Amino acid sequence: MAEWGERLAGVRGVLLDISGVLYDGGEDGGAAIAGSVEAVARLKRSGLKVRFCTNESQKARGALVGLLRQMGFTISKGEVTAPAPAACLVLRERGLRPHLLVHEGIRSEFDQIDMSNPNCVVIADAGEDFSYQNMNKAFQVLMELENPVLISLGKGRYYKETSGLKLDVGAYMKALEYACGIKAEVVGKPSPEFFKSALKEMGVDAHQAIMIGDDIVGDVGGAQRCGMRALQVRTGKFRPSDEHHPEVKADGYVDNLAEAVDLLLLHSDK
Amino acid sequence: MAEWGERLAGVRGVLLDISGVLYDGGEDGGAAIAGSVEAVARLKRSGLKVRFCTNESQKARGALVGLLRQMGFTISKGEVTAPAPAACLVLRERGLRPHLLVHEGIRSEFDQIDMSNPNCVVIADAGEDFSYQNMNKAFQVLMELENPVLISLGKGRYYKETSGLKLDVGAYMKALEYACGIKAEVVGKPSPEFFKSALKEMGVDAHQAIMIGDDIVGDVGGAQRCGMRALQVRTGKFRPSDEHHPEVKADGYVDNLAEAVDLLLLHSDK
Repeated sequence: MAEWGERLAGVRGVLLDISGVLYDGGEDGGAAIAGSVEAVARLKRSGLKVRFCTNESQKARGALVGLLRQMGFTISKGEVTAPAPAACLVLRERGLRPHLLVHEGIRSEFDQIDMSNPNCVVIADAGEDFSYQNMNKAFQVLMELENPVLISLGKGRYYKETSGLKLDVGAYMKALEYACGIKAEVVGKPSPEFFKSALKEMGVDAHQAIMIGDDIVGDVGGAQRCGMRALQVRTGKFRPSDEHHPEVKADGYVDNLAEAVDLLLLHSDK
Repeated sequence: MAEWGERLAGVRGVLLDISGVLYDGGEDGGAAIAGSVEAVARLKRSGLKVRFCTNESQKARGALVGLLRQMGFTISKGEVTAPAPAACLVLRERGLRPHLLVHEGIRSEFDQIDMSNPNCVVIADAGEDFSYQNMNKAFQVLMELENPVLISLGKGRYYKETSGLKLDVGAYMKALEYACGIKAEVVGKPSPEFFKSALKEMGVDAHQAIMIGDDIVGDVGGAQRCGMRALQVRTGKFRPSDEHHPEVKADGYVDNLAEAVDLLLLHSDK
């Protein structure tokens, strides 16, 4: 593999995944990953542009940012690209009125959206709210529509909490796709539109940007398909087999965000 | 389309799906479909061989037969081919110790199976037991196995109860397949092994047998791929679009089991 200097040359902006990179979530609120608080602070001081690009769909951005600030991170709501606000834009543009299958914590993001007489379903990481009853209700809404539209906030397979691996929204999206014989529209990583909106908000072109994430497919593969570079951290949902993934090869694998930032500060153009 | 006489010539044995053909299930136990009790009785008196071939995986065979007898059907446990007993054979043959994600009502079928230290997951139509917690547990068991084995009792998309459409096991099978990056093994319709075991138990060759079901893919398509003929009834989960299915064309569509039996008694060889 090329030297780090070559691999990181010309990087001007950094997109950071949040869960599994900054912190591991959990019922107790979760915990910062060792070294990540300082790594974000150093990155922000470095002159590189920084933006957070998350598929978090259990917590509204305000609550997520509040939690991270409590852990010591320097982060504000305006720096976060997240799927719920992106989905609201889509719903408005297309006159869609959603039935929501989402976690209680994210409902407030949809406060301004008309939800009467639903003509689509929006699914997000609902956690314990993925009950049979709630899944069945979403299924029935879709089956009653002439042109069923299913919008999924991300399509992650699973994520890691302090208590272990947890099923993510992608699994339940697949269940509804199969039951209804339809294909969901994904808003969030790895959708190219989503990465592009994050790049635009950061003000950096794809070839000058690098994504740092724990998901080999959603973060690394998705960013690379947009023309960005991407590093995978060995924290969060990382599994050793990811380094031999049949389809996706990261531009580099690092132990954690702290190591990624060390390398970036050494080798990127500031 | 050819005349019924031609389409039904040489039929000597009839496989009957249960749910959606004999009765529609429901929280209240469900209700016989009009004309089906008499149709089964006439069929049995006709000299044609009859066997029941179901993907029912919420109720043990004894309970299912008991419910049907209460509704007036003439049926015994030994006439029913069902996925749970078939799965038990597979588990024994391969030394598999299952973690069960199934409905309480079917656990008794696995009474003789070693379930210590699980090395596979068996999933069935668990209904309300498809909680996030139970799905997550099954997911975690699979992710801890070096060679994860997922056995699914059928792969139906949905079925119809008296209260409406309900998600079937296939949707949850797809969720676990996607989350774990694996392919499930299906025991039940439309698996060819399952149809063949039903034919063997009935003592009739595939080309002399006909399947009657409400599922265009699971019943009709599956039986046809085994060399059988198949009729779809317009009861249960039938939807008008099934008659224009892109991949499967039944040998005939009938309003209900009573009409199917009328035609069989007129045209088949007894």
